[in-house]
Amino acid sequence: MRDFLPADKARRERVLAVIRERYRAHGFDEIETPVMEEYERLHAGLGADNEKLAYNVLKRGLDADAIRAAAEQPSELTDLGLRYDLTVPLARFYATNRGQLPTVFRSIQMAPVWRAERPQKGRYRQFVQCDIDVIGDASARAEAELVVATLDTVDALGLEGGDIRINDRRALDWMLDSFGFRADERPGVLITIDKLDKIGAEGVAAELRERGATASAVDAFEEFLLRPMTMEYHPYGERQVRKALPEGAPDDVVAHLVGIGEAVGAARGLSEDHRSLSLSKGGDIPLVFDPFLVRGMGYYTGTIFELAHPSVDYSLGGGGRYDGMIGRFLGQDVPAVGFSIGFERIVDLVAATEDASARAIVLVHDRDVPIAELVAHKAALVSAGARVRLEQRTKNLKGLLERSAADGYTQFATVAAGDTDLAFKPLG
Amino acid sequence: MRDFLPADKARRERVLAVIRERYRAHGFDEIETPVMEEYERLHAGLGADNEKLAYNVLKRGLDADAIRAAAEQPSELTDLGLRYDLTVPLARFYATNRGQLPTVFRSIQMAPVWRAERPQKGRYRQFVQCDIDVIGDASARAEAELVVATLDTVDALGLEGGDIRINDRRALDWMLDSFGFRADERPGVLITIDKLDKIGAEGVAAELRERGATASAVDAFEEFLLRPMTMEYHPYGERQVRKALPEGAPDDVVAHLVGIGEAVGAARGLSEDHRSLSLSKGGDIPLVFDPFLVRGMGYYTGTIFELAHPSVDYSLGGGGRYDGMIGRFLGQDVPAVGFSIGFERIVDLVAATEDASARAIVLVHDRDVPIAELVAHKAALVSAGARVRLEQRTKNLKGLLERSAADGYTQFATVAAGDTDLAFKPLG
Repeated sequence: MRDFLPADKARRERVLAVIRERYRAHGFDEIETPVMEEYERLHAGLGADNEKLAYNVLKRGLDADAIRAAAEQPSELTDLGLRYDLTVPLARFYATNRGQLPTVFRSIQMAPVWRAERPQKGRYRQFVQCDIDVIGDASARAEAELVVATLDTVDALGLEGGDIRINDRRALDWMLDSFGFRADERPGVLITIDKLDKIGAEGVAAELRERGATASAVDAFEEFLLRPMTMEYHPYGERQVRKALPEGAPDDVVAHLVGIGEAVGAARGLSEDHRSLSLSKGGDIPLVFDPFLVRGMGYYTGTIFELAHPSVDYSLGGGGRYDGMIGRFLGQDVPAVGFSIGFERIVDLVAATEDASARAIVLVHDRDVPIAELVAHKAALVSAGARVRLEQRTKNLKGLLERSAADGYTQFATVAAGDTDLAFKPLG
Repeated sequence: MRDFLPADKARRERVLAVIRERYRAHGFDEIETPVMEEYERLHAGLGADNEKLAYNVLKRGLDADAIRAAAEQPSELTDLGLRYDLTVPLARFYATNRGQLPTVFRSIQMAPVWRAERPQKGRYRQFVQCDIDVIGDASARAEAELVVATLDTVDALGLEGGDIRINDRRALDWMLDSFGFRADERPGVLITIDKLDKIGAEGVAAELRERGATASAVDAFEEFLLRPMTMEYHPYGERQVRKALPEGAPDDVVAHLVGIGEAVGAARGLSEDHRSLSLSKGGDIPLVFDPFLVRGMGYYTGTIFELAHPSVDYSLGGGGRYDGMIGRFLGQDVPAVGFSIGFERIVDLVAATEDASARAIVLVHDRDVPIAELVAHKAALVSAGARVRLEQRTKNLKGLLERSAADGYTQFATVAAGDTDLAFKPLG
């Protein structure tokens, strides 16, 4: 867990403000839930491995007997926990407040989550997630709105050139079935497929054989991965998606993927015969169909996404459809799909520039200037729209001015007792 | 603990943005600390009664033996806790990061705190505090900057007419000594004095007698409270402050109070002979000297403040000087003074108005409009600077439009399949 000093905090707040503004423009509405949720809810099996990393809060008023009685069952010591993601709280929020929300509810959540991870570089125990979700829309419109809003937001942050990989869990499951993998092999097979980018088709096949996966299925999979692909950019649409999958892929899954591609193409102003998912980077739209994209969370039921940017080799965010989760809290299934930006990763990539047009003034004063004079100078400048800091002159004036410039101040003036007009000079 | 729905969350973020912008203009810099602090630090005696209300976090990986061993000492079960205020974390932050901060550090913290209060109306277990603090300045300049920034911010929120009551713990202690109260009586006497506004001078004297406070001291105090006061607005400055205190008040304390009044008067553009603390509401400046103002926290060592507004009969914030606290973490005393706005109280008073000039459009579409057309309409309007929500037409169109207006949307258009030009109509 980290302290944020002024320069870092200011940058984080600027990035959050851009994300909030862009997501709002796309019709999403920000909500907030308490940082603590009930222990039972956090440990209902929806958080996968993150459940084990939850910080749990000690019950208040436990006496010695209650503590002893909990020795074999430590969960008896706790009734609340800090959230480890924003998805479980959103599902609970929707179940609680559904009557006051629109039929299709588009939420923004920008808030910290906590995980008791082992300390390692680039991992924090408190970190911010920025999620948008569409609840109550089973159609491809929901995915299209998420993708368009996310790409626009990433652009607005100055990170142009990002793209989103997309797949569908149903397509993945169907494909593994069609090769002949058993359902119980699926989790292990998916872990290996997830390495395709790194170890290639031969590497995946070798690892699957080593794992002892069904031999005929591995052969069929390898043959499919190594098949000759004619790169044929027309016709767009359904045929293109089908080309990337084994023959006979389910119509509804293909139609859903095609629908997302068409809508994102339309949003980017492409003509009808160019509206399609790309099959590789650099296509007409930055939404690339990757039939081997795997995302870890067990609750995904359909579309899955991952956000990439050419400047880094790790993902900047991801998401997917989780039509089953809200039913766990509401007792009635409601379709839902979300996209989470990895705020901590994004914030490191965004340029640290302050708004240089703002007037930010340091008043460097002698020790003997009466307080009332100083405070009056400052108040007059603040009223005139400036940001103002008072600094008592030190021997190292140069150092003082350099530090002020680093803190985002753009001008300074020196103040002696009795001064009425101040002369402003540029800083830095 | 509460969920915040879109309208409430938007209002809270607007209020936070105003506070952040104003405090920054006054030269304060925002920081952030983790929500969890070490248990030992939260229970070092600086949080007074709030320490008992802290939420404590269960240690990870406790086994049955460790739990049994902690039966008589439950604090062994916990190593972290949620902060109950922003002052203890600030003192820890300053001790940790001092080398990277300016000599006089002016901080902004706007963040939630947690207290396991018994549920009661208007009290929440998670609530936001907005604190500004000046660390490293023992002079009246620090108090003046806090007061000027706070009054400006409250004005910017549309809550003009607020005023700040001010006193000094040293003056209060000296006064009680001078009446003849014993030091060990002081806490109880202060609790009674705190009721002066409600029960009057006679009520206070009666309650003190009931409590068994030193009789001669109560007599002296009552005589002082009931003394005839000639309301004499000139001369300003020191003589006015001394008039409100028993004779012989310590020079340094009086000078500090007078200095604050002069500086705040100067910041408001008053001529030199009008710069002074007011002795009652409606004076030249909204900073009223109240020699009987008591604030609960034990760590205050000097100036204390309380923010009031004519629209409500409870305080909207307060603060004070706590020169001893940072030394507890740093091992070296550093002067510090802070002012905390009661965000939850303020946000209820601030008008709920959205920026009506922003273009916010609802596109009400028939069920059969292709998704690509809808998403393209939306993207074009968002690019042109609007905020856009898609809504499928329902039987109750009027209800749909009313709810959209309530959500801050200002225009709508209906969309049928194949529409190219949309006609926008005002909403609400």
